[in-house]
Amino acid sequence: MAIFERFTRLKSASRFLQYTTALCPAHSWAPTRGPLLRPAGWIQHRCVHGERSEASSAAPPRRPFSQVTPADLDFFRQLLPGRAITDPDVLESSNVDWLKSVKGNSEVLLRPKTTDEVSRILSYCNQRNLAVSPQGGNTGLVGGSVPVFDEIILSTALMNQILTFDSISGILTCQAGCVLESLSQYLEEQDFIMPLDLGAKGSCHIGGNVSTNAGGLRLLRYGSLRGTVLGLEVVLADGRVLNCLATLRKDNTGYDLKQLFIGSEGTLGVITAVSILCPRKPKSVNVAFLGCSSFQNLLETFQACRGMLGEILSAFEFLDASCMNLLEKHLKLTNPITESPFYIVIETAGSNAAHDEEKLHNFLEKVMTSSLVTDGTVATEEAKIKALWSMRERITEALRHDGYTYKYDISLSVEKIYDLVTHMRERLGDRAQNVVGYGHIGDGNLHLNITSPSKDPALLAAIEPYVYEWTSQYQGSISAEHGLGLKKRNYIYYSKTPEAVTLMGNIKAMLDPKGILNPYKTLPDDIC
Amino acid sequence: MAIFERFTRLKSASRFLQYTTALCPAHSWAPTRGPLLRPAGWIQHRCVHGERSEASSAAPPRRPFSQVTPADLDFFRQLLPGRAITDPDVLESSNVDWLKSVKGNSEVLLRPKTTDEVSRILSYCNQRNLAVSPQGGNTGLVGGSVPVFDEIILSTALMNQILTFDSISGILTCQAGCVLESLSQYLEEQDFIMPLDLGAKGSCHIGGNVSTNAGGLRLLRYGSLRGTVLGLEVVLADGRVLNCLATLRKDNTGYDLKQLFIGSEGTLGVITAVSILCPRKPKSVNVAFLGCSSFQNLLETFQACRGMLGEILSAFEFLDASCMNLLEKHLKLTNPITESPFYIVIETAGSNAAHDEEKLHNFLEKVMTSSLVTDGTVATEEAKIKALWSMRERITEALRHDGYTYKYDISLSVEKIYDLVTHMRERLGDRAQNVVGYGHIGDGNLHLNITSPSKDPALLAAIEPYVYEWTSQYQGSISAEHGLGLKKRNYIYYSKTPEAVTLMGNIKAMLDPKGILNPYKTLPDDIC
Repeated sequence: MAIFERFTRLKSASRFLQYTTALCPAHSWAPTRGPLLRPAGWIQHRCVHGERSEASSAAPPRRPFSQVTPADLDFFRQLLPGRAITDPDVLESSNVDWLKSVKGNSEVLLRPKTTDEVSRILSYCNQRNLAVSPQGGNTGLVGGSVPVFDEIILSTALMNQILTFDSISGILTCQAGCVLESLSQYLEEQDFIMPLDLGAKGSCHIGGNVSTNAGGLRLLRYGSLRGTVLGLEVVLADGRVLNCLATLRKDNTGYDLKQLFIGSEGTLGVITAVSILCPRKPKSVNVAFLGCSSFQNLLETFQACRGMLGEILSAFEFLDASCMNLLEKHLKLTNPITESPFYIVIETAGSNAAHDEEKLHNFLEKVMTSSLVTDGTVATEEAKIKALWSMRERITEALRHDGYTYKYDISLSVEKIYDLVTHMRERLGDRAQNVVGYGHIGDGNLHLNITSPSKDPALLAAIEPYVYEWTSQYQGSISAEHGLGLKKRNYIYYSKTPEAVTLMGNIKAMLDPKGILNPYKTLPDDIC
Repeated sequence: MAIFERFTRLKSASRFLQYTTALCPAHSWAPTRGPLLRPAGWIQHRCVHGERSEASSAAPPRRPFSQVTPADLDFFRQLLPGRAITDPDVLESSNVDWLKSVKGNSEVLLRPKTTDEVSRILSYCNQRNLAVSPQGGNTGLVGGSVPVFDEIILSTALMNQILTFDSISGILTCQAGCVLESLSQYLEEQDFIMPLDLGAKGSCHIGGNVSTNAGGLRLLRYGSLRGTVLGLEVVLADGRVLNCLATLRKDNTGYDLKQLFIGSEGTLGVITAVSILCPRKPKSVNVAFLGCSSFQNLLETFQACRGMLGEILSAFEFLDASCMNLLEKHLKLTNPITESPFYIVIETAGSNAAHDEEKLHNFLEKVMTSSLVTDGTVATEEAKIKALWSMRERITEALRHDGYTYKYDISLSVEKIYDLVTHMRERLGDRAQNVVGYGHIGDGNLHLNITSPSKDPALLAAIEPYVYEWTSQYQGSISAEHGLGLKKRNYIYYSKTPEAVTLMGNIKAMLDPKGILNPYKTLPDDIC
């Protein structure tokens, strides 16, 4: 029992106070938009840099779409009274992504409320050859949610109605513009939860989540949206409404068309409604924060964890010592355990608190006695849980304070996941200020971040395309959960074969022959 | 504790002996094929019956594909020495489905071992305009796995190699012809299980499972193949190999092409390899067999079960009293509890036996004291678990003894699931011998079966298309897990809109412009 006492003691230790008073802002992707500055490194269509990577992510020349005319504006204003926005101040925040790294020049923002309105907009735009940039909460990280040039912004912000919820089956149907956190709150009152949880939950729309096949913190437990999304309503490029809004767990009548629109980043259609299978709200949640002396020990801890926590394991996240240094240095957070090369955040969610605690205790006893874990602490109360989670969730914020950040979102087999960090650290040496790794071990998803005091083309040239080549060599994915958007579209060949990319192009041409939907995104320039 | 004692007492009661000696054959979809008789009701391309339903499911006229010539046979024999079969006796069992309801007239059965061989076969057939019927274990129920006319049978039977298994991530990669039960056995040795389990597991191939998006008994717990299949290798109609065989839980680089081939019944490509995410083997399994006095009580029991068993619930199946009558009458099984209008089979699977039993005890105490459940028994030992499961699994066998059976596989919202049975019973009255309902409550999947002493066109006319119209009226699916195949292809419009079906046709035309892959299946005649 000595080992568990160590954890129990830590649970009530006063050091938690500092966390409980600091509400976790790490998941506050909902930016209160201030004045729009133009930081170095913006991708602008006007300039194509000489560096290979920037050239690949920079926008290609504007395609020959029509330009919005006064007659077009009249049409939109008549269709959407008071909801066809041309005020430059309002448009500003919709033209820029939340990272403030990509900026478009759209002059019209449309805010439909109904599927029929979306259908009329797209039918009109398709006839007029006007390009359209669909936009949810605009929380994406790859420049997929803002216009590149003067595309019309089609926002789902006013499509925010919950349509039905079946408390027996747990199936929710709602419009695409519902904010994830609002859905979560609605469901929690009915003893259910959403099957996904994201940092951006306060702003992101469920339609955007589905369009980008968002991953997030609950994927380990509840699986991907490919399984939990049961139905979609989608408006195609020419305005046709495709109603696949089934609320059935099983339906094998023909091809599953909705899958085409999950993760296609608004390039094949505009999602207007979603039905999704929601799990019961867990009665008990625990979080453990543990230290490991090596990544090998961390992997063995993961194996033990899957065996002993089994069905109650809901998250297995990690950060390295460099992340902890940044949390301490820039955010003044205190490491709740003794210093370690690696840290793990484990969350359990179950239906019986006593059972869950006993399972967790047995697991901790095993990994401590076998020295897989060197130190740790456990939280069961909500405030303390949030505090422990903040050590994982506030890393992005800490990185922003550390200088210019090169961000990579990599999927790899779990055994290889940290090799890339080690390798990049060796490769870059003193040229990088910090090379840090964190992410979702349970999903094989590494967030590799490299910082330098300011933007450094020589450093970038040492990172890219090497990081993609390395990932490709080990059959990894160069975008695990963020998508390709504008920024990564030309890197697709590092993870997909030419045959596959060609077929994607065929699908795009079939569904959107004029290419008006979210142009310059997802597919590489040579396909479009 | 009195209530639980009742269960405990039943657990060790001698009546279980009868089950333990009778090994459950319900999952023996692997037929030892006897002499091929031609029962009444075969769908033959030669005759199109006057009845509307049979006309819809009967094959359309043969399309103008080429016929196999001696030169073609020479090519196949050179490519596949000893594996291009023309022996009529061997071909016979590949030409007929296991229900013996559909029969083709193929004269060539090809047994490739490698993806390259499949590629060469399809490249050749596409050039020669030869139609191909891909075949896995030939255990389908809708006539999707056998030729309709003289299509070449392309069998995956010799593509049965396990390629890799990662015991940290639980990701298995194998050829498409691996038998599901073989994969299960391989994984169990490594403390994992397949995420799906089917009656046909002794014969069905994983490639066929994926091609038909098989559901089965574990879907409630582990979700559909749309989430658990991580990668596919597919040979397209023209022989191109599409390698999407990723072994990553997350990959958002472009459109998820593999989804096109899951559930498309071999009409868009031939799956040659699969990677799939496998769960840990549970350490503890319990099965409860319960009686309910009404369907409303059964639904309330389901709600209580989801709340109290939570993460350990792995199946919630039901059968009605009519099913029990057939089990008793035709198979001489003994009802393990007192007679009830409805019966439930609940399975739990977890990582701690004591915890699981306590959760189950608490649940049973609640549903018994509130009279939701009137009687029940619990099994924890493997033999007794199989015995209880056989009450659910042997219904199909019992039905076969009851006469000619009209079978329907319906998805509905869980509240409506039994209304269809009640309604059909009232509608058909004495015209039907028996109208029975059973299935997967947890998935909203009803198996409605109607028997008559012999084939009865008047009865069929009273059932169809009414049963499909009724299902459509309540936004159900007319094929929950069996697919459309040959038999149900023309009923697709009851569950999908014309826009959706048109789009499916476009996808077929894009991927298989000559229509050589599994013709006459899945898509309705007006689209092909």
